[in-house]
Amino acid sequence: MPADSDLIVPGGEDRDVDKSLFKSLPERSKHEDFIRRAVDLLVERVVFGRTSRTSKVVEWTAPEDIKTAIDLKPRDGPVSHDELLGIMADVARYSVNTGHPYFVNQLFSTVDPYGLIGQWLTDALNPSVYTYEVAPVFTLMEEEVLREMRSIVGWPEGQGDGIFCPGGSVANGYAISCARFYYYPEIKSKGVYAVPKLVLFTSELAHYSTKKMAAFMGIGSDNCVLVKTDKCGKIDVNDLEMKITEAIEDGATPFLVTATAGTTVYGAFDPLVPIAAVCKKYNIWLHVDAAWGGGALMSKKHRHLLSGIELADSVTWNPHKLLAAPQQCSTFLIRHKNVLKEGHSSNAKYLFQKDKFYDTSYDTGDKHIQCGRRADVLKFWFMWKAKGSEGFEKHIDTLFDNAKYFLEHIRQRDGFQLVVENPECTNVMFWYIPTCLRGRENEPDYKERLNKVAPKIKERMIKEGSMMVTYQPQGDLANFFRIVFQNSALDHKDMVYFANEFERLGKDIVV
Amino acid sequence: MPADSDLIVPGGEDRDVDKSLFKSLPERSKHEDFIRRAVDLLVERVVFGRTSRTSKVVEWTAPEDIKTAIDLKPRDGPVSHDELLGIMADVARYSVNTGHPYFVNQLFSTVDPYGLIGQWLTDALNPSVYTYEVAPVFTLMEEEVLREMRSIVGWPEGQGDGIFCPGGSVANGYAISCARFYYYPEIKSKGVYAVPKLVLFTSELAHYSTKKMAAFMGIGSDNCVLVKTDKCGKIDVNDLEMKITEAIEDGATPFLVTATAGTTVYGAFDPLVPIAAVCKKYNIWLHVDAAWGGGALMSKKHRHLLSGIELADSVTWNPHKLLAAPQQCSTFLIRHKNVLKEGHSSNAKYLFQKDKFYDTSYDTGDKHIQCGRRADVLKFWFMWKAKGSEGFEKHIDTLFDNAKYFLEHIRQRDGFQLVVENPECTNVMFWYIPTCLRGRENEPDYKERLNKVAPKIKERMIKEGSMMVTYQPQGDLANFFRIVFQNSALDHKDMVYFANEFERLGKDIVV
Repeated sequence: MPADSDLIVPGGEDRDVDKSLFKSLPERSKHEDFIRRAVDLLVERVVFGRTSRTSKVVEWTAPEDIKTAIDLKPRDGPVSHDELLGIMADVARYSVNTGHPYFVNQLFSTVDPYGLIGQWLTDALNPSVYTYEVAPVFTLMEEEVLREMRSIVGWPEGQGDGIFCPGGSVANGYAISCARFYYYPEIKSKGVYAVPKLVLFTSELAHYSTKKMAAFMGIGSDNCVLVKTDKCGKIDVNDLEMKITEAIEDGATPFLVTATAGTTVYGAFDPLVPIAAVCKKYNIWLHVDAAWGGGALMSKKHRHLLSGIELADSVTWNPHKLLAAPQQCSTFLIRHKNVLKEGHSSNAKYLFQKDKFYDTSYDTGDKHIQCGRRADVLKFWFMWKAKGSEGFEKHIDTLFDNAKYFLEHIRQRDGFQLVVENPECTNVMFWYIPTCLRGRENEPDYKERLNKVAPKIKERMIKEGSMMVTYQPQGDLANFFRIVFQNSALDHKDMVYFANEFERLGKDIVV
Repeated sequence: MPADSDLIVPGGEDRDVDKSLFKSLPERSKHEDFIRRAVDLLVERVVFGRTSRTSKVVEWTAPEDIKTAIDLKPRDGPVSHDELLGIMADVARYSVNTGHPYFVNQLFSTVDPYGLIGQWLTDALNPSVYTYEVAPVFTLMEEEVLREMRSIVGWPEGQGDGIFCPGGSVANGYAISCARFYYYPEIKSKGVYAVPKLVLFTSELAHYSTKKMAAFMGIGSDNCVLVKTDKCGKIDVNDLEMKITEAIEDGATPFLVTATAGTTVYGAFDPLVPIAAVCKKYNIWLHVDAAWGGGALMSKKHRHLLSGIELADSVTWNPHKLLAAPQQCSTFLIRHKNVLKEGHSSNAKYLFQKDKFYDTSYDTGDKHIQCGRRADVLKFWFMWKAKGSEGFEKHIDTLFDNAKYFLEHIRQRDGFQLVVENPECTNVMFWYIPTCLRGRENEPDYKERLNKVAPKIKERMIKEGSMMVTYQPQGDLANFFRIVFQNSALDHKDMVYFANEFERLGKDIVV
């Protein structure tokens, strides 16, 4: 037993000593053996084994069948290492292959090799990021990456602050919190009772999180006012201003506009410059939810889509979306320096002691509403190191090029009808019209029948596992497909594959 | 290019085909080579290389020196694979070794081999848990684990609901949200304006998150009333009732008491049975923050500490704390079936379509305030499979036994003075008194001098890297140490090591 410092080996990495994480040598050797076998399985079967285009995206299995295939219930006794390896294989088998090139169903996909290794390293180090003492590297890395992202947004050097969040929804919640604290700091202690009814604004096509967070944060979903959009899905700035003046006339307190840079379904970019002008006129905080579209800032060719974002007070930007970092990597960036800290700090003495021997301004955890917090930075930072900003730019340009190619391909192809003629992001929205419905657009039950097509195609698609593309209705529009690209390993041939697959799965559908 | 289904290999895992995640064969082979080398480094140097007792817990490095050692700034161009491997080694080197047996600084530690593999598998599958369609296995696994945890809490089979949260703070926020929605559902749409001022109660030694979340959620930190505690750190039930009646007299709306099962510093367990009686009397929601102490429910010997928890309306329980699951694994459990869903759902049509071909009650994402969400269940479930409930019970019993041994050891040893004579959890709080202060308890500057001891010992400790134990002041008490056990690979000899280390580092300190 090492009872004095002589036995502490500086930087020692002596694997052969008895005293280790694993109590005794036999136990340790058993664990080591398991870890090696499990890692082999992970690398060969999961990482390399599931991403070829000839494997299935999903092995569709109904809930009751998965429950039969995997014994999900925790038991009293342990299972053997061999059984554990079998369980790992089963979990992988019945899970959706989100790293597959033909998983284009959500605003995330891909398992980037550098992102994955960055994540695995994070897990092995098992940090919680709140103090420099406990997470020195992760703390500095977060600060550096957030600083760089603010610089890409276009804010002057040295301004602002930022945090990593558990998803874009929570980041949009921070926007609500920071905006109301900035104008009415007394809300922190007194609650929203301290000022007349708070009202915020976002578009009717914005992500649902702003409304949801308004409810969670005590403002109420009705006080999140939805502003009209045009046919491309962009916010109607006149309607925004009208609704702001209406709220003021009603005696409410408008304090926040959340604009969207890349809406969830259409990928539309709200016009930030005129919105910023309205916000300035009424002294309202401008938040830009660029969770989805933020990645386009990395491309000289496409960053114009977000022009005016530098006028925002705060920004949500999720590198796990367009930049294809692993789940979850989500940031909230803010132009004002101390709002996050002053708006959220509680100065808990057991964690944020001020008499530590180092500069405690590096103890950044009190800016967050979380206490313990996973490090989501390393995987993204590691990808950035591996590819460089140039690599991200090339990635983005490839995605937009693929989306454009797919758009033009289906525009000319029988059976495809576009929902938005010229979408701005890498989302492409369309109806696939089966033979039985072609030429029947004017019949009274057309829309009702069309509405049934996408769910039927989707069922076939999932059951065959040949691709995954999502559908949804919107407003008065019947169910349509949204295909979405974040995987730059795809090429033009893949775009033709997707169109062919829709034809194969959908042409003969009868509704 | 596979243009028809014949080329879709059922369950295919053909690694040799050209079409893969990685665009071309040369690129793929380059990535494969990197992944293999990186994994070797991870397993040998990080997982196995850092957990022996003779290695350092931390290689203390000041912020500016880390910035010199690691080029943290993202750059335009990529770096080579060799450089990336070097970076990985450096990130590990300068990170705190939270898996080290002598990292006893926070309410988490250990890198459990099964937990780690479960986490790595999760990363390789890169799921986001909101719909069954996209995360079938993870969805069912969450439901099963949460059901089992509710059953351990003691609620009747078939009742209740639960979710995984990004940390205990957010889970405590869900308690606020669910309680206020349960009594006043109109708050969801109208905001807290809909009812007279909301007031909630927790102890003065409760985790800061309840107050912080009250501020974030629009109620205001002042309306989180702090109740007195006794000298063991338990809530004073008379004071609780008095403060509730005072609030009612003031015209406010008491709706929630958050009791604590295992306080952050003292590890105290609030008396749940009498608190539940008060809550019942005043029709107030009882939430139990068992983030820390919840793991004791797995032990027949120690679960009495939480007796009465089955009377709670909701519970926070973090398996990443006492049960040593990897960061982050945090749950919110609730006895009422539909409150989470009704209180938080927004029915976004693009994600939660009701015309899917399967039973959409499995699409559980709308219960959350997050949209995209990491799967934190698999690592814990996998540990449970590997160890069985019996394994967790043995783990808990070992922790309590070690804590008791350490307590009795320092009780009899010169220089140690206990803050709490008989702590209930695995936290042990003490002052180490250097020689220069012994026998001077009655001198007027004693407390001021004592207050300086812990920071000085801590600085030495960190700079030597021989262990990591945190300190804090509390109320009128001078800085004291809190050692905390969650790593069941420790044994009685390690307990003596800790005491010896305090003596070695602290005995000659001059303040």
